[in-house]
Amino acid sequence: MTEQVYKLVEVTGSSKHGYQQAIENAINRASKTVRHLRWFQVVETRGYIEEDKVAYWQVSLKIGFSLDNPDQE
Amino acid sequence: MTEQVYKLVEVTGSSKHGYQQAIENAINRASKTVRHLRWFQVVETRGYIEEDKVAYWQVSLKIGFSLDNPDQE
Amino acid sequence: MTEQVYKLVEVTGSSKHGYQQAIENAINRASKTVRHLRWFQVVETRGYIEEDKVAYWQVSLKIGFSLDNPDQE
Amino acid sequence: MTEQVYKLVEVTGSSKHGYQQAIENAINRASKTVRHLRWFQVVETRGYIEEDKVAYWQVSLKIGFSLDNPDQE
Amino acid sequence: MTEQVYKLVEVTGSSKHGYQQAIENAINRASKTVRHLRWFQVVETRGYIEEDKVAYWQVSLKIGFSLDNPDQE
Amino acid sequence: MTEQVYKLVEVTGSSKHGYQQAIENAINRASKTVRHLRWFQVVETRGYIEEDKVAYWQVSLKIGFSLDNPDQE
Amino acid sequence: MTEQVYKLVEVTGSSKHGYQQAIENAINRASKTVRHLRWFQVVETRGYIEEDKVAYWQVSLKIGFSLDNPDQE
Amino acid sequence: MTEQVYKLVEVTGSSKHGYQQAIENAINRASKTVRHLRWFQVVETRGYIEEDKVAYWQVSLKIGFSLDNPDQE
Amino acid sequence: MTEQVYKLVEVTGSSKHGYQQAIENAINRASKTVRHLRWFQVVETRGYIEEDKVAYWQVSLKIGFSLDNPDQE
Amino acid sequence: MTEQVYKLVEVTGSSKHGYQQAIENAINRASKTVRHLRWFQVVETRGYIEEDKVAYWQVSLKIGFSLDNPDQE
Amino acid sequence: MTEQVYKLVEVTGSSKHGYQQAIENAINRASKTVRHLRWFQVVETRGYIEEDKVAYWQVSLKIGFSLDNPDQE
Amino acid sequence: MTEQVYKLVEVTGSSKHGYQQAIENAINRASKTVRHLRWFQVVETRGYIEEDKVAYWQVSLKIGFSLDNPDQE
Repeated sequence: MTEQVYKLVEVTGSSKHGYQQAIENAINRASKTVRHLRWFQVVETRGYIEEDKVAYWQVSLKIGFSLDNPDQE
Repeated sequence: MTEQVYKLVEVTGSSKHGYQQAIENAINRASKTVRHLRWFQVVETRGYIEEDKVAYWQVSLKIGFSLDNPDQE
Repeated sequence: MTEQVYKLVEVTGSSKHGYQQAIENAINRASKTVRHLRWFQVVETRGYIEEDKVAYWQVSLKIGFSLDNPDQE
Repeated sequence: MTEQVYKLVEVTGSSKHGYQQAIENAINRASKTVRHLRWFQVVETRGYIEEDKVAYWQVSLKIGFSLDNPDQE
Repeated sequence: MTEQVYKLVEVTGSSKHGYQQAIENAINRASKTVRHLRWFQVVETRGYIEEDKVAYWQVSLKIGFSLDNPDQE
Repeated sequence: MTEQVYKLVEVTGSSKHGYQQAIENAINRASKTVRHLRWFQVVETRGYIEEDKVAYWQVSLKIGFSLDNPDQE
Repeated sequence: MTEQVYKLVEVTGSSKHGYQQAIENAINRASKTVRHLRWFQVVETRGYIEEDKVAYWQVSLKIGFSLDNPDQE
Repeated sequence: MTEQVYKLVEVTGSSKHGYQQAIENAINRASKTVRHLRWFQVVETRGYIEEDKVAYWQVSLKIGFSLDNPDQE
Repeated sequence: MTEQVYKLVEVTGSSKHGYQQAIENAINRASKTVRHLRWFQVVETRGYIEEDKVAYWQVSLKIGFSLDNPDQE
Repeated sequence: MTEQVYKLVEVTGSSKHGYQQAIENAINRASKTVRHLRWFQVVETRGYIEEDKVAYWQVSLKIGFSLDNPDQE
Repeated sequence: MTEQVYKLVEVTGSSKHGYQQAIENAINRASKTVRHLRWFQVVETRGYIEEDKVAYWQVSLKIGFSLDNPDQE
Repeated sequence: MTEQVYKLVEVTGSSKHGYQQAIENAINRASKTVRHLRWFQVVETRGYIEEDKVAYWQVSLKIGFSLDNPDQE
């Protein structure tokens, strides 16, 4: 392992189906523009209510990714 | 949209079945006495353990609801 | 109920399958060395990403257990 | 002054015009259902953006009011 | 125990006599309008000073109470 | 509304004229490189003092924007 | 009441006898060098242990005092 | 610029007129006893309510000032 | 004094009689299994309510103790 | 100085050699893709342990940089 | 990698020589009673002053270690 | 040891050379106007960047000192 530097981006994923799906949607979307995703940390969990039910789960998370030489780790 | 004012109440929902069900129980119960629920924010996640298993999931959340004219938004 | 004293230990559980399973794995493992587990509080939720998917859910929690006379409560 | 007890309620005020107006709208609305308001504390400041401008300022605040004998203070 | 839902209210109790009395005054006052009080959590401890002595202890606390079926627990 | 994903960026706006102008400057500048801005949250308020007066208001805020299909919401 | 400005100082009081006495010792000592003390806020509660007992209670608090014209309020 | 040391003092400014004026009042008053003020950071925003309106805005801030050689920077 | 290393454990003490007694019960119980206790820091103060009175005070604290050579300090 | 807007990015630097080197590695790497770096703030300090020694220091920091006209300051 | 569970312990290391040495002393001491140390997180940095110089650096950190099967990772 | 009262002041030290030197500069400067310094606690670590390198380390710390009878401890 070399002396890696990572960058963290904050995203909010949403899902009709649940907490985990909102996180997975966020990671999936981030992977379309950033490579070498490594880890995530949940920052906040919220949701939108319609007709007294959870209409959308909304989870904010920080996603860390490797900036350099990720294959040499 | 007019200049809405919202109120937030804090409730703790519990469930034998899981994290999301505890949140949905809390929202369902709040909807019996308050109308026009709009969003929730998770404050704390705890649980009660019996015989080395999670007996009750306990999730504290703030629920926001519209105080006025909600249908005119 | 007598005047109980409880101890809290912090553990991080991991699971391929999800958030709740990571918590249950942590409690299950703690129960092998500590008796009289009573409650848990989630401290932090993180995860490890591989090939743009959540490979491991990692949940840090404090677990409280009774230090004395738990059967006399 | 007797030994007062106060209650705090959390509200979110919104305004097209600015930060202070959002707070004043929240206090004005709270005063319609609660008497003897005494103080407020700002909890969070957010806003909604439309066409790259602040469309609504949204300020969450706790408002404290006296539960008893307020005129005898 | 059924799947209870609890509500939390925030109150500030004051007392000339001390920290604990301020908490007990807050709980006593809350019990006049809310039933089935279950627990409290201290949020903040402040006080008012007159002539270089503590004139009033002021303790803010959240009080949790059961919303349903409390006798069936 | 589809299952949106949002990204949050943190910026610090400054203004000679005041708190709100610093926020609006930050949003205005962000809009030059990012589209579909949706909301902001104030993180910190500071300022620079010259000759015993506020020379610059400095407000750090997170700005959230939609990553996909914003017009189809 | 004019437009007062207050200053806050942070002090740590200690006492062999208890929590409240540590606070009162801190206020009493502060009053020897600063006039017009108005309020305090507890920041942290710690203590020093000797022979398995609390030897000294140590309470850190912020004390607010009026900088000008306190008698004209 | 030499290796400066700064001191921070915490003050609470109040104003009938608004948020920014409370901050400016605090800085103005601090400048009467301390020289070389450099920056401020807002710590807390509160207010006093009379007859359902904001009677006084109260803003607590830390003010930083240079302890040495400020003109040689 | 040599270069000491300390360990911190988190415990929750409870007492029918009050805040301080809950802390002292926690320290007393910890002293039965750990030697060389040095200090404590209060983490959280809660309580259990029965019939509208505080039935049990519950104080969570971290207790620090010396791991080595405590008599040579 | 004009009315600058700054952006903050969060990065995690790592180093075998120590705390400061991890920060400097993070700044050095950020400078390859972003110009006009102005300041940093440490968010979190962690490390990876191998064979009971610190193998990698890992420091997360926010780095602020000027978005416009940096040479005209 | 199997579904690992980790435990975290909090220790305070001290050193006459500096910040990093205090952390390394804490890890070295922890390694004498716990195996399979994996990572640390700094919680707080303090120090003891004698004759206007830092006599002891004191760093509190959480150390995580693997509870099971560490060699099979 | 008598029942000491301590005061805490917050200072920001800066140094071209590093993190520890910034702390030591702050303590050294504080010792010129205050006697009987006892301990410090780090509040925040920042730095100023010039030409993509750390030009100044800036560490904010609280310094505690004894208000009375320090030699009789």
